[in-house]
Amino acid sequence: MLSIFISLFLRSIHWNMFINDTIIALATAAGSSAIAVIRLSGSNAITITDKNFISKSGKSLKQKGTHTITLGHIVDGERYIDEVLVSVFRNPKSYTGEDTVEISCHGSSYIQSEIIRLFLSKGCRVARAGEFTLRSFLNAKLDLSQAEAVADLIASDNKAAHQLAMQQMRGGFSNDLKSLRAELVNFASLIELELDFSEEDVEFADRNKFNSLLDEIVQTLKKLIDSFASGSVLKDGIPTAIVGAPNAGKSTLLNTLLNDEKAIVSHIAGTTRDAIEDELSIEGIKFRFIDTAGIRTTEDMVENIGIKKTFEKMSQAQAILYIIDANEISPNTTKEIQNRIKQINVEYKDKKIILIINKIDQVNPENLIDFCKDLDPIMLSAKSGKGVEILQKRLLGMANTGLLNSGDTVITNVRHYEALTKALIEIQNVQTGLESQIPGDLLAIDIRQALYHIGEITGEITSDDLLGNIFSNFCIGK
Amino acid sequence: MLSIFISLFLRSIHWNMFINDTIIALATAAGSSAIAVIRLSGSNAITITDKNFISKSGKSLKQKGTHTITLGHIVDGERYIDEVLVSVFRNPKSYTGEDTVEISCHGSSYIQSEIIRLFLSKGCRVARAGEFTLRSFLNAKLDLSQAEAVADLIASDNKAAHQLAMQQMRGGFSNDLKSLRAELVNFASLIELELDFSEEDVEFADRNKFNSLLDEIVQTLKKLIDSFASGSVLKDGIPTAIVGAPNAGKSTLLNTLLNDEKAIVSHIAGTTRDAIEDELSIEGIKFRFIDTAGIRTTEDMVENIGIKKTFEKMSQAQAILYIIDANEISPNTTKEIQNRIKQINVEYKDKKIILIINKIDQVNPENLIDFCKDLDPIMLSAKSGKGVEILQKRLLGMANTGLLNSGDTVITNVRHYEALTKALIEIQNVQTGLESQIPGDLLAIDIRQALYHIGEITGEITSDDLLGNIFSNFCIGK
Repeated sequence: MLSIFISLFLRSIHWNMFINDTIIALATAAGSSAIAVIRLSGSNAITITDKNFISKSGKSLKQKGTHTITLGHIVDGERYIDEVLVSVFRNPKSYTGEDTVEISCHGSSYIQSEIIRLFLSKGCRVARAGEFTLRSFLNAKLDLSQAEAVADLIASDNKAAHQLAMQQMRGGFSNDLKSLRAELVNFASLIELELDFSEEDVEFADRNKFNSLLDEIVQTLKKLIDSFASGSVLKDGIPTAIVGAPNAGKSTLLNTLLNDEKAIVSHIAGTTRDAIEDELSIEGIKFRFIDTAGIRTTEDMVENIGIKKTFEKMSQAQAILYIIDANEISPNTTKEIQNRIKQINVEYKDKKIILIINKIDQVNPENLIDFCKDLDPIMLSAKSGKGVEILQKRLLGMANTGLLNSGDTVITNVRHYEALTKALIEIQNVQTGLESQIPGDLLAIDIRQALYHIGEITGEITSDDLLGNIFSNFCIGK
Repeated sequence: MLSIFISLFLRSIHWNMFINDTIIALATAAGSSAIAVIRLSGSNAITITDKNFISKSGKSLKQKGTHTITLGHIVDGERYIDEVLVSVFRNPKSYTGEDTVEISCHGSSYIQSEIIRLFLSKGCRVARAGEFTLRSFLNAKLDLSQAEAVADLIASDNKAAHQLAMQQMRGGFSNDLKSLRAELVNFASLIELELDFSEEDVEFADRNKFNSLLDEIVQTLKKLIDSFASGSVLKDGIPTAIVGAPNAGKSTLLNTLLNDEKAIVSHIAGTTRDAIEDELSIEGIKFRFIDTAGIRTTEDMVENIGIKKTFEKMSQAQAILYIIDANEISPNTTKEIQNRIKQINVEYKDKKIILIINKIDQVNPENLIDFCKDLDPIMLSAKSGKGVEILQKRLLGMANTGLLNSGDTVITNVRHYEALTKALIEIQNVQTGLESQIPGDLLAIDIRQALYHIGEITGEITSDDLLGNIFSNFCIGK
């Protein structure tokens, strides 16, 4: 609904009109706290604030330079609303590129809404979701992929997602793409120039150089496209299925893992996590645990549906924790269980499989020796927590060797993935066209298509719909 | 528990040692948002930040003056944690009076905790609840009643509470008390001087002037003490009982009032209210509604206990909304109901009573004409909301004439109330002592006691226990 509204709004109004007014929003999280920050941006931001501000020093904000802070009171006529610090950022040296004011007030919800109410009555308007960052983009302070990284950065809740967003915000792959695109634009113009002289059969564009540029672009695009799979996993968490027979202790293990984590983070002030029960960060790497129905042979229709779903989930996971109840293991059952494990190893050979023997405190460890040889399981008690940290280390090791630490640029954004894929197809069309020596005008069309898709990523090419979709996903105040 | 800890802590360490280290805390509300502010205060605040900060301009924070803002990155060695704005406040021109740094980072919980974690490893310590304000008090930036007003200001959720806290924070009555106390100190020293010359029977302190000072102090104290009753009501909400027969529509009315309010506040960004079902602000005045069991004559023991509680609640309330079901009113019942109303008016004559006839859309209005004359009830339908705004206006009018708009200084703090009451007793002892011409040394004791209690309010007299109790009620980060 919001995105429709914004999209309609963006279409109906010209950018230069749109960014002429002064917007206001609460920039910090809602709720009671020591301080809260209210942000104004637009050509009148400083003037409007000044009219409702009495500084301690008596100086007006108009006399203040950029990046300065002034102590004083926000007043509504005779009424003192709050003692505040006002930060002034002057155009173009601000986040949005416009004159910007940040009012740091006491963190009472009442005061926050009173200040916003006051400025709304003085000619500000409530900022739309992402509008500060949109203005930043429109004023060329950020390119589009950097603007998108801002939202990712705010949403980042683990080391990997944070690292990817920071990389993208600091320029990341968009700088590479921009320079490749610039070279491509150059070739495109030379080829279009040839069209003007088509009767003279001249070649302005060096075909060899053009070919090697195309090769380079293809390599870059392919690498970025390939990085998407692991990028999404890093950002959203490594999908990890917990499977095993009923009562093997799957849910207990999940709870123990989650509680352990809660204990780890809770001594840092302000780290209240959203209560997502099945996500867990181990040293900054996020795992998305998938608890499953127990697997066993049964005639029960309903239970069989559950088990079928378990197999589906296992095939979607990147890692599988396979749990066996230590009590189940006896000389009689060893063969059968080992066969089960082999079967899973064969069937899911593209997954990382970690074998776990649970409830080890309930059995004589000697009973397990025979069973365990060649299997290298993790022995633990999910209930007491004994051995769980070994599991955590194994999970972490798996993530680090397999997925992280490549050092390469990684993309995580579906929009980028799609644009890159389209750009690759067009570039490959250009290559094929060059080989088969198709006419220059057809070549030019393919090049323009490729330029379009690459430009979409960095924002050199935008449409109102595109911007509307991107910024409607932001929070208000950013 | 926390207060015990802080109290023990405060006792065990000398202030000057205590305020030597650098503290850190998240100052804005926890959660995901556009920006978050992390605050550091202490002699190393700027140096520690500087070591983990790379400014865009290349300048170090040490070169920056007070009240300046610098753009750059928080880094942990090679790792970029976030792009931030760093505000520098130099001792003594900061909230705490110490060197203070505010780091405005992206509002991701992960980034917030990473930055705090980094600075904890570099020698900061997590701030205790209220510790920034405690330091502000210890550095004489605020007196004690002003420091307390900061907590009240943050907790304020309505116009009246906000106004009272602002008044107190801006000096309020503590300036008056301070000057009266200074004069009293002056007299006390003259009287103690007389003791040194007791054999010569001289009088340094002019007894007439002293008497009129005492009178003035008594007047001031009495006025402040008297203001406490209405001050608490303004701050905590006007207790308003909703009473009537079972099914008269008490709960429906309460819901309608509350929903109406929710609709009013929800269009302002960031005004998420705590879900306290029975509190309601009408144009900034808070009402605390007390829903009660229906009143009727019954043999049922349990129900009678409920009804007894209703009468208790009515006597605690300042206002009573007495609801009658319009369907109940007929020529046969008119007399009986009018008697009931009279009885309540007599029994609760010190309360504001508002008579309400509910479910008016279910009866022929003409049936009510006879009943209503001389009663001036509000006719409404709690279910449809018809007439409810008239009730809101009546409530507001009642609050404005009775309680607000006196323009006088009002105290709201139980601690102040107690100290003022004790001071008054001691001052009255001094007055009695003067009249009965008790010896100067006894007089001096009473004066000192009075000085002690007045000084406790403004913080000229403090104990570690007192400070511990006050600041443990603050939020962390303030």
